Formats: sequence, structure tokens, C-alpha cells
Amino acid sequence: MKKNSNVVIIGAGFGGIELAKALRNKMINVLLVDKHNYHNFQPLMYQVATGGLEPGSIAYPVRRIFRNNKNITFRMAEVLEVMPKEKILKTSIGTIAYDYLVIATGSQNNYFNFETKKDQLLTLKSIPEALNLRSFIFQNLEKALANVNDEPLEEIMNIAIVGGGPAGIELAGALAEMKRYVLPKDFPDLDLSMMSINLYEAAPALLSSMSEEASEKSLEYLHQLGINVFLNSRVQDYDGSLITLADKSNFRTDTVIWTAGVKGAPIAGIPEEAIVGGNRIAVNEYNQAAGTKNIYAIGDVASHITPESPDGLPMLAPVAQQHGKALAKNILRLEAGKQMKAFTYLDKGVMATIGRRKAVVDLKIWKFQGTFAWLVWMFVHIMSLVGFRNKVVAFVDWMVNYFTYDRPLGLIIRPYKRKES
Amino acid sequence: MKKNSNVVIIGAGFGGIELAKALRNKMINVLLVDKHNYHNFQPLMYQVATGGLEPGSIAYPVRRIFRNNKNITFRMAEVLEVMPKEKILKTSIGTIAYDYLVIATGSQNNYFNFETKKDQLLTLKSIPEALNLRSFIFQNLEKALANVNDEPLEEIMNIAIVGGGPAGIELAGALAEMKRYVLPKDFPDLDLSMMSINLYEAAPALLSSMSEEASEKSLEYLHQLGINVFLNSRVQDYDGSLITLADKSNFRTDTVIWTAGVKGAPIAGIPEEAIVGGNRIAVNEYNQAAGTKNIYAIGDVASHITPESPDGLPMLAPVAQQHGKALAKNILRLEAGKQMKAFTYLDKGVMATIGRRKAVVDLKIWKFQGTFAWLVWMFVHIMSLVGFRNKVVAFVDWMVNYFTYDRPLGLIIRPYKRKES
Repeated sequence: MKKNSNVVIIGAGFGGIELAKALRNKMINVLLVDKHNYHNFQPLMYQVATGGLEPGSIAYPVRRIFRNNKNITFRMAEVLEVMPKEKILKTSIGTIAYDYLVIATGSQNNYFNFETKKDQLLTLKSIPEALNLRSFIFQNLEKALANVNDEPLEEIMNIAIVGGGPAGIELAGALAEMKRYVLPKDFPDLDLSMMSINLYEAAPALLSSMSEEASEKSLEYLHQLGINVFLNSRVQDYDGSLITLADKSNFRTDTVIWTAGVKGAPIAGIPEEAIVGGNRIAVNEYNQAAGTKNIYAIGDVASHITPESPDGLPMLAPVAQQHGKALAKNILRLEAGKQMKAFTYLDKGVMATIGRRKAVVDLKIWKFQGTFAWLVWMFVHIMSLVGFRNKVVAFVDWMVNYFTYDRPLGLIIRPYKRKES
Repeated sequence: MKKNSNVVIIGAGFGGIELAKALRNKMINVLLVDKHNYHNFQPLMYQVATGGLEPGSIAYPVRRIFRNNKNITFRMAEVLEVMPKEKILKTSIGTIAYDYLVIATGSQNNYFNFETKKDQLLTLKSIPEALNLRSFIFQNLEKALANVNDEPLEEIMNIAIVGGGPAGIELAGALAEMKRYVLPKDFPDLDLSMMSINLYEAAPALLSSMSEEASEKSLEYLHQLGINVFLNSRVQDYDGSLITLADKSNFRTDTVIWTAGVKGAPIAGIPEEAIVGGNRIAVNEYNQAAGTKNIYAIGDVASHITPESPDGLPMLAPVAQQHGKALAKNILRLEAGKQMKAFTYLDKGVMATIGRRKAVVDLKIWKFQGTFAWLVWMFVHIMSLVGFRNKVVAFVDWMVNYFTYDRPLGLIIRPYKRKES
């Protein structure tokens, strides 16, 4: 009898989880490896950062997803390097042999020209980062009230967001609503007119990956909420208290939130020629990594070029999920001695929310904005959370938010101190 | 017109919050100072540590409690020292003048003979400590599976709890239920028979502050849950992997959770003669700190000796709350030129929970245990949480726990590394 093949999946994000799910109870051994013991719902990270949701609502233990699936094993470990010739993976918990290796490691922050300044930026790419951002914002409000060192109040209170993609505008909207509805109640002795929230986007439009309607409407929403949006504005420097733009204009602030871009997070050992633009791994229509055998990449880390997407498919959860499902089928086909089938991406649309009753939705044949878009956004996001408990708790938090105009949470559990340059 | 007096309260625990609440909208200025921006519900800390509740459910921002109360101000600050003669308080955000100073700083871990080993112990006294404990336990389970260094499995998996008071037994019960109901599902490839949970109590009985019935029943419950309880067992040493008792018996474990006692957490500047047994501040029947004028102490930090409590009133939330309410009235009496009234403690009873349908309740005239006690415990604790949102979320989490036999949360958000000796 043929021994079951070993599929090793690196990363428990949207792609890795879908792939493993589609291999449940098949005649194949799946080992899922992640440095965290939970899957997190990245699109709602900004809610954790702004105190709208608790981390526990957007995260779910991986082991719990695959209970009762004897062929799926999870290990919490850091991946060090793949050795393609030997078909082994070196990790913090030892060496793992694979027949199929799937790299589903997602993306990481891309700091571009700010690489050397990154310790002074706040980011949103993981739960600890989001919690640090939450602590930092609330610490600064407390600091503004105490103001022991006679720092200029604007510097403490101002906020700069770099990047006008979904993460940037969703964060800007949430902060603007916090400033308008929550802070006057919680900080009555603080002069909130000293707080400006600026959003800088290097491109000529917000949400450049979405439709023109979405892009224009989101700009209008942000203006309504009092955000100062700067388009065609590339940030050039930051010294810890002053951010400077390419046109030499500047803005004094302690708080620079970097959402300007991400790049792939491939692992060591992948042949150099496979790493292409955006630090992603070039894959073919079967998700095979260029120049390798038995190594596959899915989701954000995969650069999957199609006629419609000459720069590779977008870094979106649905791409990763569809990759995962398709690759599972292809692996099972190979195991059955059949030919693989080429992947085709089904674009289900994209959406972003800016604030209460303010969202934009682009479907293939219908683009809409406003209250209905916002309801659709909420419904889709609640239903996407893993686990009944998380759906209920997120629903409670959003209802409290909706009816009281309040953010339920503003706790500084672990104070965050930004590293000094 | 007489200027309003300034009441400065240090600590937003049960005592400080009740005092400030009772002074809402009075002709008096209240400044509440705490190093955290939230009030936390200490009796449920073990639930955070064992993944039963999220930190956000047992914590509530102080500012939000006192919205709409113009005479109450909150400042997040560390208190450095009181200077009684000058009637000022030195803090991390500057000097604060007071007319009345109320010390409501509560208690801190008391390590007794383990003071020099404290970095190797896990504790439960704050939310970060509880989160570290949660991370440590789940990290160790992952480590047991990987077991890279060929450490003895028992050492990684065993758990020692030192102290048989409410915190110790509630924690032991929660861990035992986790071991029985959750871990076999989440860690099917781990041999759970290698995991022992030992509880050490130096006294001859558990819950020594409660009735004999409660003490005996809690012992019976812990036995039912598979906890090894050692009474009359004083721990003597711990070297990071082996805990040794006074009788030279020992137990190999990585995880020693210290719930063996607390002591007062007074502030610097209080006259030395006022600090009495248990590091508490001696107070009279008006909560006045011995040897001071205009300085009061309430709650855990106050040593309030009564005929029934020759060692001072117990360190319990209801004492702190009643102190706070009574002192508020006395301050208002003094302001009105009247005499203060002596405090009398109304003992409303004590309770502890060991597991599902296992709790013990001591009321003055009625002591009961079992399912009804457990329902009473749940009701009282849910109703005591601050805020509608927290009540609902805790209820959801406990219902999920009850019906699925599951702990909803087991996330290692920030891995915890114990300091090495």
C-alpha cells in the first residue's frame, strides 16, 4: 500500500486555512505550521487598533479549526529555511520532511524609503502591532492632558496616516469617528480642535485598486468626517516629531501610522530567480513556485500573473482562499495520478468601510455606496469571522458602537513605548 | 464663597471607584489617579489567565465611568510620594495639592520566602500578568508537542499552584476542567496523563477565611476534578524546574503559579509607624491613617481592626466598596462642619467557584454549595462587571463554555518568556 504523502503548509492565514480545510479527511497527511497559534482576520485589524473590537474577536486558535480532523496536524514554529533538494524544511522545532510544500506566508509591511525609520512608525500588520497602536493613541491622549514636558499639544495629538488603501481609509474613518463621538465625552478637558488627522496618499486617488466611484465616494466620506486628505503626496522623511513631504510641506506629529504598502514574505531557501516584484514568489497557473519542484505558493506571497492582472493577482483574502481550495484539488489530482487544472480567479468584488453608514462596495456588475453598502460590509465581515462566539461578540460590540456612538474599548493593557531613533 | 475642597484618590480599584461615585455631583473636586486607565475586576483575573474571558470583559476605562460628572477628573499617573506636611502628592505628571488624600492602592503579591525567586513564578495580580500566564500555559503545551530539547515531558506539562485561597482554587478548578474537556480535543497527540496539577497550601485547610463546609466541599470538588491537593504543605524552594517542600518532597515543573498571599501596597511618604502587619496602613474607624491628618486609607491597603477582625478587615472587594461609600459620606460631613460617623462593616458573605456547577457560598445565616451556589456566583459576578457590553460578552463566553465544555479563548498574543534565575 502506498504511504500517504505529506503536505506541509507554512502559514495559517486565509490561504493556508482554506487549503488545509479542503484536505480534511483525505488520504493525505497535512502539517500546518505557523509562528502563532491562531488564525487572524487581517481585514479587521484596524478595529482592534481603534478599540472597536477585542483581539479575541478577530483571532481563532488554529487547533480548534481542525479538531476532529485526524489527518491535519498543527505545529507552532518559526520556519527557518527550505532545502528544496532534500525536500526538508528547517524550523525552530526541528526538521520537517515534505512531499508537497505550500508557502502561504502572506505579506509584511513594506516601508519603501522609510525602511530606516520603521521603528518610529506605528503599523497594523499583526495583533500585537494593532494593540501597540491602540495603547499609543490612548497614552498620547493621557499625555496631552498631563503635558509634563510642555511639548506642543499638536505634536502629541496630531495623527498622520500614510497610505490611502483600504487599511488607511478604514483606520482614518474610525479615528475620525472616535475624535467626533467618543473623545469629547472621555476627555472633556482636552481641546480637541488641536487634533488634526492627515492622510497622505502618493497616488492621485484613494483606493486605487477599486472603482472610480468608490475612490471618489471614500474621499467625500473622509472629508465629511474631518480628515485632511492629501493626494499625490509622497512622504519623504520623519524625524520622530516632524513628517516632511516631497513638496517640503510638513506636519508636526508624534503618531505616524504606516499603511503605505505590503510586500511578500517568502521564506529563505527559495531560488533567487523565483523572487519577483513586490518580494513575491513567481508561480504558474498551478501555483508552482518558479524553478522548483513540489513547492507551491498561494495568496499574498504568490505572484500570480494573469492577462487581467499583469502585476499578479491582488493581495486579497479571496485570492488566497481560492488559491488554497484550487491547490488542494490539484494536489489530490496529482495523488490520483491525474493532471492538474489551471487556476482561474473569480472576482467576487471588493469593499471598504469608512464609518457609520459609509462604505463602498464594488461588485463586478454593480457598484454602490452608503448605508446599504455598510450593512453588506458588516454582514460579510461578521459572517467571515471564525467561530460562533466571535460572531456574537463582534455583533455585540458593533451594536453597542452603533447605538451609543461609542467605541466599547479603550484599554491601555500594555503601554507601548516607541523606539527612539 | 468657600472654595471647593480637593479630594485626591489614589487607585481606581473597588474602593477608589465607589468613593468617587459617592462624591459625584457634590460641591467638591475629586481627582482620581491610577497608573492604568481602567478599573479591573480582580476576582475574575483567573478567567483571563485560563482563557475563559478576554481582558476587555473584566476591565473598564475609568474615564467612561465618570462621564458627565464634571467634579470628577481622572489622571493616568504613577504616584511617587506623598508629602503630608505640604499636603501635596508627587506624581509622574507633576505635583498635586490635596485637602483630603485617600489611599486606595490595594494590595500586591506577597512572595514571603520566595521573594528572591519571584521572577520565576507566574502570578495573577494584573491583566498583563494574567495574559502572561495564559501565554505561558499554551506555549508550554505547544512546546511539549515539539519537545526539541528532550526536556522531561512532565516538567513541561506539570503545573504547581501555591496557595489554597480563592484565587488558587478557582485557578486550579479552571485548569483541571481545561485539562479534562479542552486539551484532549485541541492536543490529541499529547499524552495528558503526563500532566499533573498540584496545589500546595501551608494551612491545614483550603479557603481558610471561609466556613468549614466551604473548605471541605472545595477540597472534595478539587479531588473530583483530579487536582492533587497538599495541605499543611509549605513550599520551600524552587530552582526553575523543581519545587521543594518543607518536608523535602518535590515536584518537577516549569510552571509555578503563585497565589499564596498578598500584602498592602502603600505609597511612599506615609509615616513609618502607620505601616503595620501585612504592609497595610493602620486606620481608625473613620479610615484616617494613623499619625496623619487629612490622609485616609480604604480597602486592601487599610488595616482596619475591629472586635470581629483583630487582624484587620479582610482584603475583599465589599470591604473596599463599603469603605469608599462610608468615607465619601464622612468627607461630606466634614465639609458641612459635622462630625464623622464610625464605619461598620456589613458582611454580605463570600463565595468561590471551583468549576461547572461547583461553587461554595457562605452567607451569614446560610451556607450552601453546588449547582445553586454556582448559579448565584455567576449571576453576582456578571452583574458586578462594569458596563452593559462587558456583562453581555461575559455571558456569551460563559454560555459557550457551559454548552460546549470549551474555553473560548486560547490565544498566545504576546509570547511570554519567564526570566531565568
